[in-house]
Amino acid sequence: MERVTVREIFRETEKYLNKEVQIEGWIRTLRSSKKFGFIEVNDGTFFKNIQVVFDEKLENFKEISKFPISASIVVQGKLDPTPEAKQPFEIKATSVSMIGDSAKDYPLQKKRHSFEYLRTIAHLRPRSNAFSAVFRVRSLAAYAIHKFFQERNFVYVHTPIITGSDAEGAGEMFRVTNLDLKNIPLDDENKVDFSKDFFGKDTNLTVSGQLEAEAYALAFRNVYTFGPTFRAENSNTARHAAEFWMIEPEIAFADLNDDMDLAEDMMKYIINYVMENAKEEMEFFNSFVDKGLFDRLENVVNSEFERITYTEAIEILEKSKEKFQYPVKWGIDLQTEHERYITEKVFKKPVFVTDYPKDIKAFYMRLNDDNKTVAAMDLLVPGVGEIVGGSQREERLDVLEERMKELGMSEKEYWWYLELRKYGGTKHAGFGLGFERAIMYMTGMKNIRDVIPFPRTVGSAEF
Amino acid sequence: MERVTVREIFRETEKYLNKEVQIEGWIRTLRSSKKFGFIEVNDGTFFKNIQVVFDEKLENFKEISKFPISASIVVQGKLDPTPEAKQPFEIKATSVSMIGDSAKDYPLQKKRHSFEYLRTIAHLRPRSNAFSAVFRVRSLAAYAIHKFFQERNFVYVHTPIITGSDAEGAGEMFRVTNLDLKNIPLDDENKVDFSKDFFGKDTNLTVSGQLEAEAYALAFRNVYTFGPTFRAENSNTARHAAEFWMIEPEIAFADLNDDMDLAEDMMKYIINYVMENAKEEMEFFNSFVDKGLFDRLENVVNSEFERITYTEAIEILEKSKEKFQYPVKWGIDLQTEHERYITEKVFKKPVFVTDYPKDIKAFYMRLNDDNKTVAAMDLLVPGVGEIVGGSQREERLDVLEERMKELGMSEKEYWWYLELRKYGGTKHAGFGLGFERAIMYMTGMKNIRDVIPFPRTVGSAEF
Repeated sequence: MERVTVREIFRETEKYLNKEVQIEGWIRTLRSSKKFGFIEVNDGTFFKNIQVVFDEKLENFKEISKFPISASIVVQGKLDPTPEAKQPFEIKATSVSMIGDSAKDYPLQKKRHSFEYLRTIAHLRPRSNAFSAVFRVRSLAAYAIHKFFQERNFVYVHTPIITGSDAEGAGEMFRVTNLDLKNIPLDDENKVDFSKDFFGKDTNLTVSGQLEAEAYALAFRNVYTFGPTFRAENSNTARHAAEFWMIEPEIAFADLNDDMDLAEDMMKYIINYVMENAKEEMEFFNSFVDKGLFDRLENVVNSEFERITYTEAIEILEKSKEKFQYPVKWGIDLQTEHERYITEKVFKKPVFVTDYPKDIKAFYMRLNDDNKTVAAMDLLVPGVGEIVGGSQREERLDVLEERMKELGMSEKEYWWYLELRKYGGTKHAGFGLGFERAIMYMTGMKNIRDVIPFPRTVGSAEF
Repeated sequence: MERVTVREIFRETEKYLNKEVQIEGWIRTLRSSKKFGFIEVNDGTFFKNIQVVFDEKLENFKEISKFPISASIVVQGKLDPTPEAKQPFEIKATSVSMIGDSAKDYPLQKKRHSFEYLRTIAHLRPRSNAFSAVFRVRSLAAYAIHKFFQERNFVYVHTPIITGSDAEGAGEMFRVTNLDLKNIPLDDENKVDFSKDFFGKDTNLTVSGQLEAEAYALAFRNVYTFGPTFRAENSNTARHAAEFWMIEPEIAFADLNDDMDLAEDMMKYIINYVMENAKEEMEFFNSFVDKGLFDRLENVVNSEFERITYTEAIEILEKSKEKFQYPVKWGIDLQTEHERYITEKVFKKPVFVTDYPKDIKAFYMRLNDDNKTVAAMDLLVPGVGEIVGGSQREERLDVLEERMKELGMSEKEYWWYLELRKYGGTKHAGFGLGFERAIMYMTGMKNIRDVIPFPRTVGSAEF
């Protein structure tokens, strides 16, 4: 009697067929008649259930017939081929026993529930088909990202979560404090005296690990971060969460083209990995969540991504006959409607848009020779719009200092960032991929709350 | 002329020997005479430097001779075998040009610096030998952990960082807030009115993802977390950081023995992976940081870990002639001196100590039949003491509720955790591995500040 998982039975069927096996798992469905019954068992290791047949020969036949949905059970029996049935095999039980009962009010009964309802039971929803698929894909995609970078000898850097600086030069941040809120110490100028706080200064949750990753790229050449980042934005939309994970590679001796090559390779790699390693889950999404999913993903994997400049993008948009909600002219930030028009209607594949006006981009992006644009790039994909944003970084100390002065930024606060240019600086580039956006893109799920195990959004930090 | 990395040259030497190559990198050392000179170049991809020879035939020979330490350069030349020299090959340069200058006050000159000093230049220290080795090992160890669990079909779960609950039932936590500290809203009872805060409640940084991981183990069977965790402890020691990363696997249909098997397999896997994939770095640690390192690690990999109960451990300690600072008797929490005695003096290999008194362990640990001890385990290793802590979890709803009542815990706050027992609970277990402790153990580094890229400790959140 070998103890096996349902995944092993599905993936190495020949090995177990006609043999005695033992599985443990949870009852997904159970139906019985007077003489026999069927249990669909899921043991968490595999998307699909395995069918268990039990009959009146079992001494506890009557009890089994009454086992509740979601009870945990141990099943022993022979793995029988069932060539004429829908499923390829079933376990003909010689023993079925319950090891964990389940109350009658178990919320995940057979009927379909709305995603909204399932969010209120985030501790149970991974037991449903949709969320079992989402969170296995999330796990595999995370691993694919590590695998991709490690195979290329990138160094994974854990950049700090608690930070005294604001990487984007803007962005609403969460404060981290240990001060007694009912007894806030003030200094001579009647300001909050953060010297009394845990870190002796005002600290926040990071919005990006990029600046620290740059320091490491200038030591290891190729590095990446993959960790949680935070935004205290009061945006109650389907695409915003207060806590999300981000991947930020940073590469030295590399320019914007190298950066785009890397982003393109990475996107294709992740999609291929998930398609290969989560076949059943991806088929579920393609059938029940987003019917165009496979077409869209295959299009990404098989196409060479287009590369156009922002100026070209504006020309295309201006010439188009499309009516946009936000009017188009050089200098504007592209809106999702513009991005989707370019990638869906014009090129029908992923598009890198490069060289944006410097005024709508961050201080660290490398100024182009035209003095008007910076070496930035956004990757736009059909169905979503922007999914990756990156740039070549300003490596010229004098140019960077000038830009920071223009923006009124404190050189003192960024002393170490500036020193990276002072001591053997070199051209380098990087980008950020919002992990949840990538998962939404690969699964067709429409709300960011449904791709994060326990989402944190305005007004909500349950579980 | 092929553009290659120093790693490629060292790892695939045959492919490049006697060929023209181009490398980019940073100058680590440079010495020159009137007619020729040598540059040790490091490009970040490999622990070792490559030697570049340049001579007066190069038109910019005199300038090259004056290139400063840490300047970034591009070198072209032939990769020459040097069978009679210390290094196996060198690049005979046909061209050397500087792409990034470095100021004369570059802090990492040839002389050795103390680790304390290097902490003050955390943005530059990964360019030194020691920290280049530490942070590559950290990256490889992180990957080894993912690889280990993914190969075993574990699902990686991103448990929340911002949380409304306290997983350990204790532990000092950092508050996360968006309230205006100079204008804290109060409610009718004169308490801080967190309903006005971003999440509508009091929130903190997580101390553990275990409780949420349990929810996922009861859906996917085998899961793991790997993310940052936080402690607001005012401990200014070499082993405490306010922000550190933790790995927490959680396995269903599994008991304490399965849990120990998993921990043992994992530890051996990580060490083997790092020894194989960071040979040069590990040799550096063994030679310059901790001379007993290889012996210790080989001992871990090759031994079967001992397993004794807490009660047996106390007996051993009581019978020993060792003078301990903390007196030994049944009921005490083992101190590092006790742990090290057991693993270093008695067994001389890693030891699992199991079945601790319930009063010194967490509420969620499974009560043993003796009603006095719980199914907990700590893994003790020579040189460190405790490195892993875990337990079988209490799956019996009534026993868990009883224990929470004893401890005065709010059942209401843990409603979802209790529901995991109500709806198809099953025996399950898990453990936590502090990632930094594991890195310290594998490298011989003695201070946690030296294995975190930008450490956060009491009074310090620089960079």
